[in-house]
Amino acid sequence: MKHRIATAALLSTVTLGLLSGPAAAQKGSGYVMVTFLSGIDYWKDAYRGMQAAGKELGVSTTYTGSVNYELNDNIATLEQVIARKPAGILLTVMNADALRPTIDKAIKAGIPVVTFDADSPKSNRYAFLGTGNERAGAEAARYLCSKVSSGEVAISSVPAQQNHVERRTGFTNYLKANCPNLKIVATTDDKTDSSVAAREMASVLQAHPNIKGIFATDAAGGVGVAQAVKEARMNGKIKIVSFDYDEGTLDNIDKGVIDATVAQGTWQMGYWGLKMLDSVAKNRIASVSNWRTASISPLPPVIDTGVSVITKANSKFWRK
Amino acid sequence: MKHRIATAALLSTVTLGLLSGPAAAQKGSGYVMVTFLSGIDYWKDAYRGMQAAGKELGVSTTYTGSVNYELNDNIATLEQVIARKPAGILLTVMNADALRPTIDKAIKAGIPVVTFDADSPKSNRYAFLGTGNERAGAEAARYLCSKVSSGEVAISSVPAQQNHVERRTGFTNYLKANCPNLKIVATTDDKTDSSVAAREMASVLQAHPNIKGIFATDAAGGVGVAQAVKEARMNGKIKIVSFDYDEGTLDNIDKGVIDATVAQGTWQMGYWGLKMLDSVAKNRIASVSNWRTASISPLPPVIDTGVSVITKANSKFWRK
Repeated sequence: MKHRIATAALLSTVTLGLLSGPAAAQKGSGYVMVTFLSGIDYWKDAYRGMQAAGKELGVSTTYTGSVNYELNDNIATLEQVIARKPAGILLTVMNADALRPTIDKAIKAGIPVVTFDADSPKSNRYAFLGTGNERAGAEAARYLCSKVSSGEVAISSVPAQQNHVERRTGFTNYLKANCPNLKIVATTDDKTDSSVAAREMASVLQAHPNIKGIFATDAAGGVGVAQAVKEARMNGKIKIVSFDYDEGTLDNIDKGVIDATVAQGTWQMGYWGLKMLDSVAKNRIASVSNWRTASISPLPPVIDTGVSVITKANSKFWRK
Repeated sequence: MKHRIATAALLSTVTLGLLSGPAAAQKGSGYVMVTFLSGIDYWKDAYRGMQAAGKELGVSTTYTGSVNYELNDNIATLEQVIARKPAGILLTVMNADALRPTIDKAIKAGIPVVTFDADSPKSNRYAFLGTGNERAGAEAARYLCSKVSSGEVAISSVPAQQNHVERRTGFTNYLKANCPNLKIVATTDDKTDSSVAAREMASVLQAHPNIKGIFATDAAGGVGVAQAVKEARMNGKIKIVSFDYDEGTLDNIDKGVIDATVAQGTWQMGYWGLKMLDSVAKNRIASVSNWRTASISPLPPVIDTGVSVITKANSKFWRK
């Protein structure tokens, strides 16, 4: 759940275009979402969730973020937002430890901070909303196993990256426990690059011609794997389950090359993130009003926002 | 997170007395909390949280539960509540799999169900709010390590019970990573009985006279351990960290025999549980209104409601 999650997401969605019209954070008013790269699509759905909660609660929300994917920009943006004394901050961090002092400064100044998508677990933030990657990997395995119950399986992933490791752990453990006749025979390093994923999976398909299923732990990997499977004329014969989505993923799902992808609950992060911030700001958070003196945790510290499985049957709901 | 959690909690709190005046669930109105043993104190704080959220939202809440600690009663009570068509059900289950068909029946009838404290993970419930026991165990270790950084440590626990296993895993892993000079030398089986805990720990203290810290993974164990430490005239010299609390725990904390206990976020379970149920009932749960057709998960599936550390400094806030 380190910054690498968001980085991976970023790499796979940066091509989707700019966020439409995020307003600059206003002085002293309402709640602010702060990201570490303001202009990408990945945060759109989270900010939509925040806006929906804001409308319900009758509070204002604004969106901002660093213009460049640079740590100093991320910290400086957060500093600027703190100086404006907002009602609360919904923050995603580029680096868990580097952002910690600035987060703690906001908390000390009485500004509630909740993190989403990428956490700073050692900071004093009140809560973190993000994807439980092991559970998400298990969900991918559950889907694959419902379509093909025996044979060889390959994984396209980034072997050393923590969120990808957790996705594979969840996937592998689910198969062992519930679908023991599906055997994982190869794991490639796709570097979250679809060209690399295609090339690596082409080699695997040559070495293992009986592969029946593939799990890609990121969207770019899924698109690359789909390419390799098509080129091997195995589409329809090999079930592909991917992770995250972009237009390429949805196109491949509609064409029947990718069977399903596991979509993260980014809307939920924004929606419940704002509801939690607002509960703290309004001191509606525990059985006693002086929770700071009582050292009572004001919010549930970790919220797994879960995943939804996108298939041909529901892909249209995910087109923006 | 099976029914054993709640059972352990029950065993350690059943002596605290009856819940004061839980109203019977009314026909067709509002939200209902359903427990598997209506008359115990343990649910009080959770129901207080539910009431607080109900007041905010302007919706009615009622409390009910089976009179006896019997599986058939638990199921029958849930069936009766479903027949009254409430707006939503906040449920804790005695047995994960036995309650599953009845939970799924409620969901099919359009009644949102959220579980708390003890989950039925394979059912179609929308969310579960409960304690992340590994994280809670790590919190106990963090506290102990802040008070004594080297020496021998003993654990009073129920070795085979899943929630206790998770608490010990979190505790042990935290020490290994952050406090390697604290060495665990003994683990007893206290059967969540304070007399057993006292007897077992007395033996451990004889065999290991240099013990500097003890972690008890349940409240009854903590009270028993405190007894053993007092009888060995080691109070003040051995730091005790317990789990959950009852009057005996708080008394021991105020007397300085138990240093701290880790309290579960039961209020949070009730508060956020109702907020989540109400969001689903009012169809405020995703970026599209037809989330059922789109197969979108309506809520974050798992919420770790966290723990607070009770010490002499804040114990008064926990007296009811």
